[in-house]
This record gives sequence, structure tokens and C-alpha cells, in this order.
Amino acid sequence: MATRSKALGRPLRVGVDVGGTKIAALVAGAGRQALGCAQVATDVTSPERTLDGIVAAVERALAQAGARLSEVGAIGLGIPGRVQPKTGVVESAVNLHWRHLAVGPLLAKRLGVPCRLENDARAATWGAYLTANESRFQNWAYISVGTGIAAGLILGGQLHRGPNSMAGEIGHAVVQPGGPRCACGLSGCLEAIAAGPAILREARSRLETRANSCGPSLLSAPGPLTTARVYEAACAGDTLARVVTRQAGWYLAQAVHSLVMTCDVERVVFGGGVARAGAAFLDPICEALDHLRQASPLAAEVLTPGLVGLLPTGYEAALWGALALAETDITDPLSG
Amino acid sequence: MATRSKALGRPLRVGVDVGGTKIAALVAGAGRQALGCAQVATDVTSPERTLDGIVAAVERALAQAGARLSEVGAIGLGIPGRVQPKTGVVESAVNLHWRHLAVGPLLAKRLGVPCRLENDARAATWGAYLTANESRFQNWAYISVGTGIAAGLILGGQLHRGPNSMAGEIGHAVVQPGGPRCACGLSGCLEAIAAGPAILREARSRLETRANSCGPSLLSAPGPLTTARVYEAACAGDTLARVVTRQAGWYLAQAVHSLVMTCDVERVVFGGGVARAGAAFLDPICEALDHLRQASPLAAEVLTPGLVGLLPTGYEAALWGALALAETDITDPLSG
Repeated sequence: MATRSKALGRPLRVGVDVGGTKIAALVAGAGRQALGCAQVATDVTSPERTLDGIVAAVERALAQAGARLSEVGAIGLGIPGRVQPKTGVVESAVNLHWRHLAVGPLLAKRLGVPCRLENDARAATWGAYLTANESRFQNWAYISVGTGIAAGLILGGQLHRGPNSMAGEIGHAVVQPGGPRCACGLSGCLEAIAAGPAILREARSRLETRANSCGPSLLSAPGPLTTARVYEAACAGDTLARVVTRQAGWYLAQAVHSLVMTCDVERVVFGGGVARAGAAFLDPICEALDHLRQASPLAAEVLTPGLVGLLPTGYEAALWGALALAETDITDPLSG
Repeated sequence: MATRSKALGRPLRVGVDVGGTKIAALVAGAGRQALGCAQVATDVTSPERTLDGIVAAVERALAQAGARLSEVGAIGLGIPGRVQPKTGVVESAVNLHWRHLAVGPLLAKRLGVPCRLENDARAATWGAYLTANESRFQNWAYISVGTGIAAGLILGGQLHRGPNSMAGEIGHAVVQPGGPRCACGLSGCLEAIAAGPAILREARSRLETRANSCGPSLLSAPGPLTTARVYEAACAGDTLARVVTRQAGWYLAQAVHSLVMTCDVERVVFGGGVARAGAAFLDPICEALDHLRQASPLAAEVLTPGLVGLLPTGYEAALWGALALAETDITDPLSG
């Protein structure tokens, strides 16, 4: 009862997405209407300065909302690293240079508000699931394809974290034995074939080979080669770019198939930097899924129409996930 | 309260493992002490005759226990097919020639005892987890390697079935793109590389090649070639057999690694006909896991010592699982 009264007196929630280059904060009231948001550059010169940046982002977002800290019931934070949600301790966050830092307790003390932490990919999963109209599915996966590849799993309506917070690390499952070397040390990991840098490397390699034989592709045009440009060129009909995006799509479709066969998820939503290419990113995955369906009645049965999709354009899953985290009691299974 | 009184008056439980060739029944009291067991041949000439066989197996096991049906609180049945645990309907059981058969209600009516059904691999998972001293792990997998390959998953201490009862069907995840054709229609499924028939096919193929070049192996000796013989020969140092069992072990280790990276399971136990080869089966898997650990610090971290193991020799996981099923209320998450 005391908690409820307190919640009524503190109707606002804040979600914070702590990135290696920027920290974004979002203030929302009941019903998840956005009231204010702010962004500051991440200063990683010391843990104290990074925490100062988080506090500044929260304060600016509140100022934009015309609100005060005393109205905030809880703050949720998505952290790019390994997090102990129960204690609020960040075990390691490489890009922030954090190791064994009690971020939750430190921020709670400074701000006078309970702070709930989660790994950012998992926060994004939770955010996409709860707020992007996906929670009609009880068994659901989010696959983020960017510099790396990671999945978040909702099983039986709950976030499945696993005892070592390793659940969903499908980027380091071997999908092509003897394939390209991965940063993790293994060969043929999904990430080493279908993440942004791998797509770029494949495009470069094919460009070099092609330059010696059958002439230029759209990708030979001046300017830096990016993953986004590979997808744009594929969209414009460039053969070389299409080969590259089809290969990535084929392995991502295999990853979807494996997730369905392993966890029986009903829906898989893609997000992350590479997925921002939209249809150019999703179409090759759908084509590959169609091939699987045609080859196998079992695959046709489990790979249902509408199985895969993209996050809505511009949807800030990690930020909304951090906000959803602030709404979730720390004793919930989400935090277990 | 009424249910509890009834349970006290009916202290016995029966587990039934319904196989394509035999039906086994086990009667146990509180504390899971075995009181009687019986086995009958499976008659698949009609659904009625198969059900008669189940009833006969239950009655014989009770007779051996010196007990009556009126003392039985519930019967659990493991069925080799797709089962609706909530309704007791078997959607399909190919080897029994059953389609859309309300086995649970039919048997409950004949025996006057509630009957709880589950897929046999999942029943075996539940049985191994609960009764083979494995329930100290909250996130746990059972991989059955026999004619096919299937896994059962315990996540957060509960059996994860999935909305379409497809969870754990890792036998049909593609692990070698462009690899051997699988019965499901796809190419390079785990089952097409590391299940019993695949191991046998690989041994035969290598024997034929070798016969034309460098002479016989132990497997060239007279008598039918079986998967068990391949493992025996490997154990005795036969080079060809070792190559074959190492290859299967390598892919099974990859499957363990994928399960760990996807679901963050803490322990993986192998069972099924091929796993009965014991150390000859498990050692190549452990060797391959060691290679992964040496190649990758991340793999070394997640592939903990003692990660994989075998069911105790002679342990009837499916039968104990069916019994455990009889102990579980139908409203439990297990049946959800």
C-alpha cells in the first residue's frame, strides 16, 4: 500500500539508453506518453564523468517535460555490457571502460530514485516486445543486426535471460563450419558472416575480384563503402550487392529457422543498424525462408507467414525498453 | 481439499512409455519407489488394439505391484508424436498410425483414472531432469540421439514446450549448409549428420572408399554394421571408426555450444540409443568442446567443465518421465 501511494505520488518514469557515443533519456507518464527527451555525448574519460552524463541527460529530459526528480518513481537504464540486474552492478561494459561498477546504487544515491539496469540488447527486446505492439505473442525473439548480432528472447511471456545472462548470444553460434574467423576466436559464427562488418568485408572482397574480371558495380562509385550503401545498391538492382545481401539474408534466415526449431518462437523481429535498410534487408531473409518452406513440409509448417518483421522505422527500442524496465518491479521475473 | 483427500486415498502413480514396438508401464508409490513394471508388444493394427495394449501393460504392472486401479491417482503417458497435453489429444503419432485421437479421454474413461499425455522426448526430458539428480540446474537440456535427434529444454526450472510443441527440435536445425539431405527435406540438418543412421551411412561410405585403397578396418568384419559397432570399433582404436565418431561428436558439440549461446543452459545431458555407447559416444563430444574452448575465451567461459554428461546406464528416462507426468497437476506450467 505504501509502495502504491508512493507510485501515485511519483507518476513519472525515465528510460535511459547509455551508448558508447551518446546517452539518451526519455521521460514518460502513465500510459507511456513521452513528455520529454534529451541527449548528451558520452564522456568515457572516467566512470564519474560517464555517470555525470547520465545524470545530465535525465535532468535535461525532465526539464523539457517541465517535471522534477521528486515526481519520478523509477529510472530504467540500458547498458552496453554485462549487468547484474538484481544488484545494479555492471560487470563489464567495454565501450564505457566500466568493470565491476555499482552503477545502480551509485545513481540511486545521487538521484534519490530507484535505478534498474539491464543489458541494452535485452532492454531493447523488452521495449520492442512491450511497446511495439508485439506482446500478443508469448514466445518472441528480437534479433539486432549491427556491428554484432544478438537476440533477445521472450519465452512464455517473460524475458529469458539465463543464469549467466548469455541467452540470445546467437551471434557466436557457428553456422558455417570452417567459415570466416570471428572476433570471439571461433570460425563461421553468424556474426562473422551476417553482421555489418562481415557484409562490408564480403562486398569489398567481391569488388576486388570483380574489378579484375567483369567491371564495376554501383559500389565502385567514389565515397566510403558502408553497409547501408551495399543495401542501397542491392535495392537499385546491382548484381554484386544483391549476391552479398542474399548471402547475409540466407544465414539470417537460417538463424530464424534455428530459433524457431530450438525455442518455438512465434515471431522474430529484426532491429539494429543494418536492419535500418528496411525492405532491402528483410526481403533476402524472406526469400531464403521461402526456399526453406519449399524444400521441407516441416519448415513450411513452422515458418509461418508473417513470422519475421522489422521494428517500426525510427523506433527507439532500447530507450523504450529502458522505460519499460523502470515500470517493472525489480522482483519480477524480468529481473530474476 | 476434495482432490487432496482423493490423492491420499489413491497413493499410486503409473508411468507408461508407449513405443512403436513395445509399451512399458511402471507403478510407483510416494517417493517414487518402483513397485511393479510390465512390458507388452505394441499392436498397431488398429488404434483400439494399441489402446488395449496400454491397458494390458498398466494392469500387468499393477498386478506385479499387488495393487489395484482404484489405488492409482493418475497415469502419465509418453507418446512418440505430437500431443495436446491440455486435452489429451494425440494430433499425430506416425509409428502408431494415430491421427487426431483423443487418447487421454479414451483411456481415462476405460481405466477410471486421469491420464496425462506428453510427447515421449519431452517426457524423457522431464523424467531425466526430475529423477536423475539433475534438478539442481534451473536451465538444462536433454539431447536424445537415436534414429533422430531432439532436445528437451528446462528453462527457469520449467519444461519449455513452446506454443506449437516444437521447442527442442534441434535435429532439424541446419548445421552444415549444403550438407547431407535430411528426411525433412532440408540439407545439412544436425539429424542428417549425427543421428544413428547418419553415423552408419558415413561409416559405410568410408568403408567402401577405404576398401578400394588401404585395406580393412574392424568394421569390415562379418556381421551387420550397426551404430553400436562403429562406437565399439572406435573404442578399440579403429582409425576409420574414430574419424566417423569424431565427426558426429564435433557436430553434437556444436549443437551443445549453440544451445548454450541461445538458451544459456547450464548443463546438457545426452540419452537415446546412440548415447548408450557411453564414453565412446561422449569422449569425442568432450574433445570437440575442448577445441572450442581453446579457440575462444568466450567459448571457454560458457562451456563450463561438467557441462555435458550422460544419463545413468540403464536409466529409463521416458518411463520415469511419464511417471513424473502423472505426479504433475494438469494445470501446472508443464502442461501449459
